[in-house]
Amino acid sequence: MAEHFSFLSLSVKNFFSLLFINAVSFAAYTQNEDSIFLRRLADEILVNSQAYKNLRELTKGIGGRLAGSPQMVKSELWGLAAMKRANAEKAWLQPCMVPHWVRGGKDKAVAVYNSSKVMNKKPPVKKELDVIALGNSAGSMKPLTANVIEIKDFDDLIKKRDVVKGRIVFYNYRFNSTFIKTFQAYGDAVRYRGQGPSHAAQYGAAAVIVRSMTHSTDNFPHTGSTNYNDSFAKIPAVAIGLRDADWLSAELSKNNVSVTMHTHGKFLPDTIGHNVIGEIKGSEFPNEFITIGGHLDSWDNCEGAHDDGAGCVQTIEIMRAFKALGYQPKRTMRFVLFANEENGLRGGNKYAEEAKAKGEKHIFALESDAGGFTPRGFGFTATDIQFEKILAWKSLLHPYGASDLVQGGGGADIGPLNRTQGTPLAGLQPDSQRYFDYHHARNDTFEAVNKRELELGAVNMAALVYLVDKYGL
Amino acid sequence: MAEHFSFLSLSVKNFFSLLFINAVSFAAYTQNEDSIFLRRLADEILVNSQAYKNLRELTKGIGGRLAGSPQMVKSELWGLAAMKRANAEKAWLQPCMVPHWVRGGKDKAVAVYNSSKVMNKKPPVKKELDVIALGNSAGSMKPLTANVIEIKDFDDLIKKRDVVKGRIVFYNYRFNSTFIKTFQAYGDAVRYRGQGPSHAAQYGAAAVIVRSMTHSTDNFPHTGSTNYNDSFAKIPAVAIGLRDADWLSAELSKNNVSVTMHTHGKFLPDTIGHNVIGEIKGSEFPNEFITIGGHLDSWDNCEGAHDDGAGCVQTIEIMRAFKALGYQPKRTMRFVLFANEENGLRGGNKYAEEAKAKGEKHIFALESDAGGFTPRGFGFTATDIQFEKILAWKSLLHPYGASDLVQGGGGADIGPLNRTQGTPLAGLQPDSQRYFDYHHARNDTFEAVNKRELELGAVNMAALVYLVDKYGL
Repeated sequence: MAEHFSFLSLSVKNFFSLLFINAVSFAAYTQNEDSIFLRRLADEILVNSQAYKNLRELTKGIGGRLAGSPQMVKSELWGLAAMKRANAEKAWLQPCMVPHWVRGGKDKAVAVYNSSKVMNKKPPVKKELDVIALGNSAGSMKPLTANVIEIKDFDDLIKKRDVVKGRIVFYNYRFNSTFIKTFQAYGDAVRYRGQGPSHAAQYGAAAVIVRSMTHSTDNFPHTGSTNYNDSFAKIPAVAIGLRDADWLSAELSKNNVSVTMHTHGKFLPDTIGHNVIGEIKGSEFPNEFITIGGHLDSWDNCEGAHDDGAGCVQTIEIMRAFKALGYQPKRTMRFVLFANEENGLRGGNKYAEEAKAKGEKHIFALESDAGGFTPRGFGFTATDIQFEKILAWKSLLHPYGASDLVQGGGGADIGPLNRTQGTPLAGLQPDSQRYFDYHHARNDTFEAVNKRELELGAVNMAALVYLVDKYGL
Repeated sequence: MAEHFSFLSLSVKNFFSLLFINAVSFAAYTQNEDSIFLRRLADEILVNSQAYKNLRELTKGIGGRLAGSPQMVKSELWGLAAMKRANAEKAWLQPCMVPHWVRGGKDKAVAVYNSSKVMNKKPPVKKELDVIALGNSAGSMKPLTANVIEIKDFDDLIKKRDVVKGRIVFYNYRFNSTFIKTFQAYGDAVRYRGQGPSHAAQYGAAAVIVRSMTHSTDNFPHTGSTNYNDSFAKIPAVAIGLRDADWLSAELSKNNVSVTMHTHGKFLPDTIGHNVIGEIKGSEFPNEFITIGGHLDSWDNCEGAHDDGAGCVQTIEIMRAFKALGYQPKRTMRFVLFANEENGLRGGNKYAEEAKAKGEKHIFALESDAGGFTPRGFGFTATDIQFEKILAWKSLLHPYGASDLVQGGGGADIGPLNRTQGTPLAGLQPDSQRYFDYHHARNDTFEAVNKRELELGAVNMAALVYLVDKYGL
């Protein structure tokens, strides 16, 4: 678009008149007072935010930080320093034992096939596939060669159960592009990563290749945890990029394909990790706690920028903004960078456990773990009465983008608070279209995050937290 | 986030039950029929869309396509072929005269200064600035050297009017980061690009450097039209990237800085361009027209992917989807790729002119010219009665993302229809956070567009057009 702006100058005028109309028609001085404070909060974050700078330090300076890794230790120390820089009244590390899975080397898979185009050539053609071992998976340790069988879904596996033995099962289940919210496609497809290896092992498969959980247009493979069933052999398992998956499927429809796979994953003994916690003491109800958080760990094959560097730096930013404005919350606010979300959830469990042991009353918890994209709303795990109260804040959030408020949502790390003491939960719901382009893949880097989108996430989270703190739930 | 999905499987269930509740509580069989058709429309686009492929052809295959350029001609022929491939019942080129501004060479600016750090060194330090001449601007034709004076805003210019003569005016007006919708920041800042050069020339300035209209974190300069006032000298004018702008401002606060600028812009005689038009004939009211469009031209320094390749391929995609579903509209639908939006608007004017001359009754026009980002809503130029009717469709659009429906909006190319015959207008409003990172800058390339975000824009536009066609306005 060029310079034709008659309709936009109109919008600027409307903007202010709408603010005014909202304020008076929504019946109250308090709403007006709230909208003024939320505007100050937004201005503070949009003008002075440290979130983007912090994200650069965490992702470019430290990088991938899986539980147990040296980068985990670095990131904890970084997080503690960042909490202090953001003027935490108190900041500390909460220790917890974490699993220590290591990739152990470069994951490789080479396909060997007789291309129909070059059928008469000897020896057969080789093609290196872009793969990455699934998190928590057992390595092949030495090269493993077997013929590949394509499996469309678990029904198809059952149909073919008698011919799976000794072969590499290739789950080629597609991300469903007709779901508007991409998390629904993930929820639908992720079982092939989670349960696929053990299901295949049940019928004697030698290894598994899983189509990556994405609808990206590139070929990066996406890792993520797999969950072995102890009743069956723990067979090696890798994810494969979409172009290679499509190629493999096309080739299998014409020819026999064998793959030589070599992975090295294993568990070392559990080690000590930490939740990083910053706190602002409540002035009226210091014994009521509100938790805001993201998770500090990430997969080792990327910088963990959207997953979940974004949630961490937003968490720190919200605290910084409250302190910068001299805002004194009624309740005690805890800003938490959780340990080990990706392959164990030990940090979230530890946090809830200690809260319970100390008799802390946690009245609300909010997590950002769906990427640093432009905010659209929040998903809640709350009672109907609580949710009704939240819905009344819709018009206050609307100017900042996150006004789609729905029941259902939260976050993995804060889930234990709900299970142990019924704490109502919320999860930031950014726009989801790009999330699975980056999720657990090597392109989840600092460059994939937009500064303003990241900051707007923090603005909306801060707004919701302010309202919960002021009015309770 | 990892594999913890209890709350998401809940969401999937909620999704279907909500669809159901919506359908019955919203009182009607027709709403239900509509929501079913809109779901089919969305599935068709999300599964079979040609939009991304078309965008690649237009941006990577042809590239920048300013009015009058050889790429303009290529893109018109491409557009006509694409319309036919998408099964237009009729497709043609509508000729119109277009301006023919050429950049004429590589724009250059070199700053010469005595850095305080290297004060004792001779000769003074040189630094090449990343600049691009403003569209429609007159070139310096030979190197032009003058001292630079920083101007904060037009008030500051008036204050300093006596010392501007013979100098290069550097407008360093910042994009206001506190506006949530970035188009408001653009509306606020763009006057320094549009009127800045002539305002400076009024006081005898030799040339102008404008801070780019963006809050990006990179250093790419952003071009765009300037509008000379014929009463004053037409002085050369360039835009400068933000890092260079900040450097220049910091240096000027300490030292004298002169800049040698060399630009080559000029107008060649007007030439013939074309609107590209595809049509589906209306079955009930063939003499009532609905126009859907984007603009085919772009600046020459980029691939014009978001601005406005996206709008063009969405336009074609909507027609393709209607035809693929065998949908027969009641009214005649026109799918238009407009010529020369960026520096003349001749295509939009010609289209409205010819519509009026032929006595065509245009009942609605919709444009996509705010980038191929995730859709959030539509802005309308409509009467209150029309807008009330539109608001009743909100719940039908909500599942697809574009349910923020506001008064105020449209598009530059369809504006003339409103002015000549009062046609109500709508503009797609995608999320605006990233738009000005790319707008008129060399990073507005195919890679900057996300496939699903682009497609979802088409889904929502198609949905709105379907509703207007079915129910009128």
